[in-house]
Amino acid sequence: MKQKELHIEGIIKRITRFIYVFLLTLCSGGVASLFAQQHPLLILKKQEINTIRKNVAQAPLFQQVVAKNQAIVDQEIKLGPQVPVPKDMAGGYTHERHKRNFFVLQKAGNLFQITGDEKYARYIREVLLAYAKLYPKLGLHPTKRSYATGKIFWQCLNDTNWLVYVSQAYDCIYDWLKPKDRHLLETQLFRPFADFISIKNPQFFNRIHNHSTWGNAAVGMIGLVMGDKELINRALYGLQLNKSDDAQKDDDNGLITLPNQKKAGFFAQLDHAFSPDGYYTEGPYYQRYAISPFILFAKALANNRPDLKIFRYRHDLLKKAVYALLYQTDRQGLFFPINDAQKGMSFKSRELISAVDIIYESQGKDASLLSIAEQQGKVTMDYSGFVVAQDIHQKKSQPFIRKSIELSDGKNGDEGALGILRSRKDDQEVCLVFKYTAQGLGHGHYDKLSYSLYGNQGEVIQDYGAARWVNIDQKQGGRYLPENRTWAKQTIAHNTVVMDETSHFKGHFSTGNAHHSDRYFYDASNPNFQIASAKDLHAYPGVKMHRTLALLKDKAFDKPILIDVFRVDALKAHQFDLPLWFQGHLLNTSFQYKAQTQQQSTLGTQAGYQHLWKEALGKSTTNQAQFSWFHRGEFFTATSWVSNNDELIFARLGANDPSFNLRRDPALIIRKKDQKQTVFATIIEPHGAYSPVDEVPQRPFGQVSKIVVSHQSDAYTAIEFSTGKSSRWTLIIVNNNHNLKAQHQLKIQNKTFRWQGVYHLFKH
Amino acid sequence: MKQKELHIEGIIKRITRFIYVFLLTLCSGGVASLFAQQHPLLILKKQEINTIRKNVAQAPLFQQVVAKNQAIVDQEIKLGPQVPVPKDMAGGYTHERHKRNFFVLQKAGNLFQITGDEKYARYIREVLLAYAKLYPKLGLHPTKRSYATGKIFWQCLNDTNWLVYVSQAYDCIYDWLKPKDRHLLETQLFRPFADFISIKNPQFFNRIHNHSTWGNAAVGMIGLVMGDKELINRALYGLQLNKSDDAQKDDDNGLITLPNQKKAGFFAQLDHAFSPDGYYTEGPYYQRYAISPFILFAKALANNRPDLKIFRYRHDLLKKAVYALLYQTDRQGLFFPINDAQKGMSFKSRELISAVDIIYESQGKDASLLSIAEQQGKVTMDYSGFVVAQDIHQKKSQPFIRKSIELSDGKNGDEGALGILRSRKDDQEVCLVFKYTAQGLGHGHYDKLSYSLYGNQGEVIQDYGAARWVNIDQKQGGRYLPENRTWAKQTIAHNTVVMDETSHFKGHFSTGNAHHSDRYFYDASNPNFQIASAKDLHAYPGVKMHRTLALLKDKAFDKPILIDVFRVDALKAHQFDLPLWFQGHLLNTSFQYKAQTQQQSTLGTQAGYQHLWKEALGKSTTNQAQFSWFHRGEFFTATSWVSNNDELIFARLGANDPSFNLRRDPALIIRKKDQKQTVFATIIEPHGAYSPVDEVPQRPFGQVSKIVVSHQSDAYTAIEFSTGKSSRWTLIIVNNNHNLKAQHQLKIQNKTFRWQGVYHLFKH
Repeated sequence: MKQKELHIEGIIKRITRFIYVFLLTLCSGGVASLFAQQHPLLILKKQEINTIRKNVAQAPLFQQVVAKNQAIVDQEIKLGPQVPVPKDMAGGYTHERHKRNFFVLQKAGNLFQITGDEKYARYIREVLLAYAKLYPKLGLHPTKRSYATGKIFWQCLNDTNWLVYVSQAYDCIYDWLKPKDRHLLETQLFRPFADFISIKNPQFFNRIHNHSTWGNAAVGMIGLVMGDKELINRALYGLQLNKSDDAQKDDDNGLITLPNQKKAGFFAQLDHAFSPDGYYTEGPYYQRYAISPFILFAKALANNRPDLKIFRYRHDLLKKAVYALLYQTDRQGLFFPINDAQKGMSFKSRELISAVDIIYESQGKDASLLSIAEQQGKVTMDYSGFVVAQDIHQKKSQPFIRKSIELSDGKNGDEGALGILRSRKDDQEVCLVFKYTAQGLGHGHYDKLSYSLYGNQGEVIQDYGAARWVNIDQKQGGRYLPENRTWAKQTIAHNTVVMDETSHFKGHFSTGNAHHSDRYFYDASNPNFQIASAKDLHAYPGVKMHRTLALLKDKAFDKPILIDVFRVDALKAHQFDLPLWFQGHLLNTSFQYKAQTQQQSTLGTQAGYQHLWKEALGKSTTNQAQFSWFHRGEFFTATSWVSNNDELIFARLGANDPSFNLRRDPALIIRKKDQKQTVFATIIEPHGAYSPVDEVPQRPFGQVSKIVVSHQSDAYTAIEFSTGKSSRWTLIIVNNNHNLKAQHQLKIQNKTFRWQGVYHLFKH
Repeated sequence: MKQKELHIEGIIKRITRFIYVFLLTLCSGGVASLFAQQHPLLILKKQEINTIRKNVAQAPLFQQVVAKNQAIVDQEIKLGPQVPVPKDMAGGYTHERHKRNFFVLQKAGNLFQITGDEKYARYIREVLLAYAKLYPKLGLHPTKRSYATGKIFWQCLNDTNWLVYVSQAYDCIYDWLKPKDRHLLETQLFRPFADFISIKNPQFFNRIHNHSTWGNAAVGMIGLVMGDKELINRALYGLQLNKSDDAQKDDDNGLITLPNQKKAGFFAQLDHAFSPDGYYTEGPYYQRYAISPFILFAKALANNRPDLKIFRYRHDLLKKAVYALLYQTDRQGLFFPINDAQKGMSFKSRELISAVDIIYESQGKDASLLSIAEQQGKVTMDYSGFVVAQDIHQKKSQPFIRKSIELSDGKNGDEGALGILRSRKDDQEVCLVFKYTAQGLGHGHYDKLSYSLYGNQGEVIQDYGAARWVNIDQKQGGRYLPENRTWAKQTIAHNTVVMDETSHFKGHFSTGNAHHSDRYFYDASNPNFQIASAKDLHAYPGVKMHRTLALLKDKAFDKPILIDVFRVDALKAHQFDLPLWFQGHLLNTSFQYKAQTQQQSTLGTQAGYQHLWKEALGKSTTNQAQFSWFHRGEFFTATSWVSNNDELIFARLGANDPSFNLRRDPALIIRKKDQKQTVFATIIEPHGAYSPVDEVPQRPFGQVSKIVVSHQSDAYTAIEFSTGKSSRWTLIIVNNNHNLKAQHQLKIQNKTFRWQGVYHLFKH
């Protein structure tokens, strides 16, 4: 062939490709996206780069992040590409190396765009070509220990993490790459990769689960970068559902397919994963993990498929989900550790930094989010992070106020709720977390109607969290420990009633998963008296449990106090235990007790009781049981109404713990024996302060002198409580009529109470 | 009498008084003080007031303190004088009220001078007149529970606190008061008060003890204000000593008179209380309390009796004492809790704020003290505090570097020492506190050659401190708890060897008080290898104990590591226990152990063992016992040389604790049975990091793979240790020859080691 012919053939080829690309573009998103073809387009956008470069000096926090990331990536560039043949489990070299790679590539991509330094692009190209060479040769990861084994990692989940991050890196060098390289990468690496985690693993890709959300986002994000409409649609709407998956379970014993699941893909995740309030049924620890693919893919869709109005979906669902996460943190930003949660996880996590920045920048610039970003001390290295840093620098930040909020559970918001009450007095805050949710899937604990309480310094009445040391090799490779099942999930590990030393639903997952508690009422409208009430009818068949919790702020008390009224109603007589997992050091008690001084044995044999040492046994002769403790500079006093027959058991966690996996935490258990109907009534007062530096106790004594259940019937429960200084209150709860307009009257010891609505607090 | 005569008589009276005052002044301090008569003169000086007023805007921290104190005092002025008839113990109303009074009066005095607002002077006058009316009517305080019962308080000690503070208030309004008022106050209140706490209570005033230092300071300070030479001399040199006091003991069972005590008064305190290095034998918790009267009275003497050169006394002893206190704090400023100390006390205490400010301002303006003041966040409301605040504002502050230091014990510095070694690598610090001191008087613990270890976040290998909740009424009125004697003072509560389950000196105070450990050598000259060695020959008659502790910094290790070599040499075979009170959560062990899962019983019956639950028992088959734990974000690994017969006991504190007075802390006890001579050898490695926010463990494994005692004889002890990566070291200690020039050689397994001096570390 002659030179000229070759040249013409070249021109024809180029014209053909242009027409092909043009048509593809038209098909994959209409004319709008034709003009948005310039990369990057995914998270960081071409048109944002100049703004960042020009104004970076006005965003010092952003500059710090860029400098820090440059140091990290420059070191990797010096080391050179490291793309080993996969073989290790989590914690092992190849796992950690590939994990490091995707974080580094994503950073390198953004650094290339922000700094313009081509060394970052060259590094990405080199690493990606190494992956493109490796990937076609890979079979399944040799570990084969997952229901969905990956290729790069031991589970598909990690492969999808890789693709979510690497698609961003690819996006950032897309225009810089030669078409030949793009072609190679897309045919040898990205498209097969996307197919593997979806078509080849429908049991992974089609679930309603945070794993699959990562899968959807990964496929969708690489699809957007490549302009591959098929992948984008697969990400949004899933694969064809296959009925044969119904009985399968995952590595954590979760169901592969939800009962009656009709859809899959990203929209199905949005439909199922969150309640209308943005609550995620597994709890905030897992919501924090799951939020990343939701927010990142949504941001990518908002950038490239504005027609989907993804952030408007289900009444701003994703924005609500981020706020729901923030409301589920204590004053230090730590998440409430309900269900399987490792304590200490907080809004400083990578996932929340990115979520807060994106929601701030793209969803209304709520200035109170800036104060969260300030506490996080970091921003994400993209336009959102830049805007946040710039606005912080411009002193636009406002305090983020954690409000009282009830977060409904269940995709329709009708499967119970998490009731959060917060009461402030001066600089003191008391926060109640009341759990009347659904089971929380495979990560749920058996703790219907449990609660935890927070003071200024964190947990006062604790939720144990999970028995797991995430990624700590010395503790069974970082997996859930056996004690997670035998202890942490059991009911006695939580602040709620245990009947006959048996956990709720007998600890059976499928039974628990089929039920949820029910909100009865929630009223935080009066800041001085906030109250929530819920019932559970399924934890123990034939037993009605009804708990009401309230925060009262009154000049009689140093700080807001907690009122706890827990009514149980069974057909036959049973033993009921209510533990109080107080954090801190016992000071004294109003009742006599006998400690086990020379010998200790376990409190029981199963349902978590085998893990408790019985430290002491007390009885009260006064119908009152009061004890005080000290924790992190604050005093606390609990006062309970008890009978002469009730046992007051001081228990200590740590029995049957052959590998020292459990903490040695204390509890006081109020045990009522041989009861059909009974009420547990307790008031907890936080008060005063003490610092070992000045050694002067401030207000070291509680004020409540007495609490009495003054009436109990099917219709009403009433408690009366008073202080030594003769303030006196009666709280009446209407047990079975939540009509707010209904008029009631009740005579208690010659006094007639009249009120309207489902509860009333009388101050005498 | 006629008007004129009256007038003349008045003039004569005034002239007479003038001559009287003139003569008195001459007698009480010479001509110099005649010109210094203007008040205030004690702590704050007349001539300083203008400087403060003029420049207060340049000292914002000082301004804050003034504003805060104004708020406090103004509230008291509003309330009006409260001078009740004394009747209560500490914690009760009259006690706390009178205590509050003296703090408030002192503040009010300085506020009068600084602000010039007469309301403060009027308030002081009113309160003092109320005291002057009350005091002459008072007998002994009705409690009569002290060896030296006070009048205002249950013990003279508190009465002297009152006078130290109130003498400053009186000084501040002295010139403002009418002579008639001064006369009344001096004759009805101050002079009788000073006589009561001295002449009427020689058993209190003449001791060598921190109580008496307060007494000396109180008498001396009011003496300086009143120009009363007799009181000043009494304060400086004490009362005549009375031999009949010899056998008396105080409320804490301390001796009233020291054996062979020949002097009393402030100079005698200075001679006896501190070692030449400024170490106070009871330890830093009590030194912090004692430092107040020393520094305040010294400052008053420096202002008014410069001839005494008080700050130069014993080679700048008081300055050394303040630095010794600062060196005995961890990175958070918390004092090492050796002996009877409540944990949490820190350099932020009132006493240290005042001491640091006064030493800074008057003793050389060491800029590193300013960084301490910044961390304290407060300054004292006088000229010293003003200067500190001004210099902080001028950015003169320099970092305070805590150095390695050996603080000798005993008034002549020959009664053992506290050896402190500190090793830094990057931002990591490891600090060793090695206790080879004297007993520490009545507040001493029985823990010869014990140590504690600190990481960046505080204690890693802990000292238990005292079993006491100071001023917490719920814990036996805030007094020492019974468990202080049965647990906290016992040897097993500390990181040192216990023989045959019996404490050092069998826990007998007078035996322990008669002896001290001996330094053998201390060498912190090489920052990469710092080492201290000490012996004790008296804790167990006939048993020689010799411990050597070193900090090694080497690139083989993530952070500096601790090497512990403890040799015991007895005439007969015994059982030796060495506990390791590790703080944190056990991760794993290299050896097998069997946990007590269903039943627990105590480890022993006495000497503190009755307070320990035996949680698990292990044995090693490899001559190595390794275990790791996690604490406050850091990993730790301990590796010990053990025999097949050694028992490895996991113990938990909390048995025989009928009132929940003890913490539930863990220990690993290495038990060697039936031994005459033996060596305990352990290496502790701090390493890595883990945060629950990112869940990625950094360097979670220790490096030491082996430690062996490779030689033991009367002459030498040698240990060899190595890492998995084949770094290898031999440390040889010369047991009985601390000649630094001596040449040694020793053959260990065919290898001959040659060195000079008392120890050598060989790296192979």
